[in-house]
Amino acid sequence: MLEGRLPEWVEARWWLSVEELHRLAPEAEIGWFDMHEKPPLLRAVELAQGLKWLNSVYAGLDFLPLDELRERRVLLTNGTGLTAIQVSEFAVLGMLAIAKNYPAVVRAQGRHEWLSTAPGIRDLAGSKALILGLGAIGKRIAAALEGFGVEVTAVRRHQAEGVLTPGEWRGRLREFDWIVLAVPGTPETEGMIGTGELAAMKREAVLVNFARANVVDQAALVDALRDRRIFAAMLDVTDPEPLPADHPLWELDNAHITMHLSGIPTPQSMARAVDRFLENCGRYRRGEPLEPRFDVSLGY
Amino acid sequence: MLEGRLPEWVEARWWLSVEELHRLAPEAEIGWFDMHEKPPLLRAVELAQGLKWLNSVYAGLDFLPLDELRERRVLLTNGTGLTAIQVSEFAVLGMLAIAKNYPAVVRAQGRHEWLSTAPGIRDLAGSKALILGLGAIGKRIAAALEGFGVEVTAVRRHQAEGVLTPGEWRGRLREFDWIVLAVPGTPETEGMIGTGELAAMKREAVLVNFARANVVDQAALVDALRDRRIFAAMLDVTDPEPLPADHPLWELDNAHITMHLSGIPTPQSMARAVDRFLENCGRYRRGEPLEPRFDVSLGY
Repeated sequence: MLEGRLPEWVEARWWLSVEELHRLAPEAEIGWFDMHEKPPLLRAVELAQGLKWLNSVYAGLDFLPLDELRERRVLLTNGTGLTAIQVSEFAVLGMLAIAKNYPAVVRAQGRHEWLSTAPGIRDLAGSKALILGLGAIGKRIAAALEGFGVEVTAVRRHQAEGVLTPGEWRGRLREFDWIVLAVPGTPETEGMIGTGELAAMKREAVLVNFARANVVDQAALVDALRDRRIFAAMLDVTDPEPLPADHPLWELDNAHITMHLSGIPTPQSMARAVDRFLENCGRYRRGEPLEPRFDVSLGY
Repeated sequence: MLEGRLPEWVEARWWLSVEELHRLAPEAEIGWFDMHEKPPLLRAVELAQGLKWLNSVYAGLDFLPLDELRERRVLLTNGTGLTAIQVSEFAVLGMLAIAKNYPAVVRAQGRHEWLSTAPGIRDLAGSKALILGLGAIGKRIAAALEGFGVEVTAVRRHQAEGVLTPGEWRGRLREFDWIVLAVPGTPETEGMIGTGELAAMKREAVLVNFARANVVDQAALVDALRDRRIFAAMLDVTDPEPLPADHPLWELDNAHITMHLSGIPTPQSMARAVDRFLENCGRYRRGEPLEPRFDVSLGY
């Protein structure tokens, strides 16, 4: 997708295997090393000691040695926003699926069985959602939910009108039907939903996690779901991934697992990634700030 | 839900069985005879020769002897809008489920299998939807889709800005990723999607029917789905209902059946129905027009 579109001053070195990547990495000034397996990617970063700019399609770069890269003064551009469309659509799909108990409908179709009573009768309209994190994903989720007549309250780090700050939301947890996690994976967000937060939610509350697995105390969540202290959870992220076949989350009828599918690059998101990389090549050449610049100290 | 809330001038007669209803019907000036089985309901209408106003929670009253009721000058109020929230949410859920192939995700969870490739990668954002029928349901679907960044084009009987009329939409069918049926069941809408319309759709098109089964030529649809001449269909309504266990629609992997669940009255919609009936009691007493008044000649 990049071939033929790179500016002339870029001497492209293409890699198709880990071996090729590791052989070429030491020459790289600009790197785009994304691969599903993280250890060989980290080895490439280690080998690329001439690196000035590392690009990635991933929004969360917490798998990288961020402190070391800061010391090496490597610029980082991440994939924030590239998959925001698909992630936010998956999150709202998950909420609707829980509202109507759509999995029960899918299973009934598998049995060729016409259900005569509705397995789920919640409405999104008129319900209240708390969205933690108002980045590209959180904003899209908020816009979609408002289209259904959901009353949306958002939490973000930076104070703004109509938005709660990280100090304010815990005291209001009981008000919400939906608690949607769209925060970045940072030391600050790790474990932000634990036993106390789960206990503060109402019994009808649904937890929706399209952020990072470690934002939630997963063992506490399993207990809360099993005891029906909350209504359900829609989890795109779990610890570990893949979830082992004998993990209790698979079997809980109120735990819905979407297997981190929402963040898998699609042809559409890759096209956006290529366009953005090419725009950044121009900025890099002109000495302008790259966008989006990943802030290593904030972790997003 | 009505008990204790009716105005004093209403002498309420409550029925709990078909026998009771048929015994009481001849006395009725105002009737609310809704039941799932239609033949005993029709018999009650026949027996209620003193009827001046018949109320129903159903939006489509095409099961009633409309011509006869017009001759008898019986006022009709239907349930239009009462279930619009749940129907429209179900319709958009269906579209998202097809976009991401969520049924495949549900089935994988049943096998405790972590999918590593996304079974569906369509985005709603940036796609184009044609909504046929812009009543309470169509309007809500349009609003929700716009929240996802879908480009919505609507068709309605009455000319309006940015809206296609019944004469215009066929020529533009190929433009749309989603064709959403939200029209009332009338002689005019019967069979409006047949072989020709299906052939005019693009291969990626998805047909979403939350209207009436007879709006679509179901045999032609089965063929189009089987030959993959369109991408998929989301059908809340089928012919017949319930669909027999050996019907081919159950097995087609691109036919998604929601078993008319979207229109089943919920506690929320019943509460709205009761509020509306009480408001109409006041209007009836004051000799004012009832809302919504069902237009027998239009059929909605």
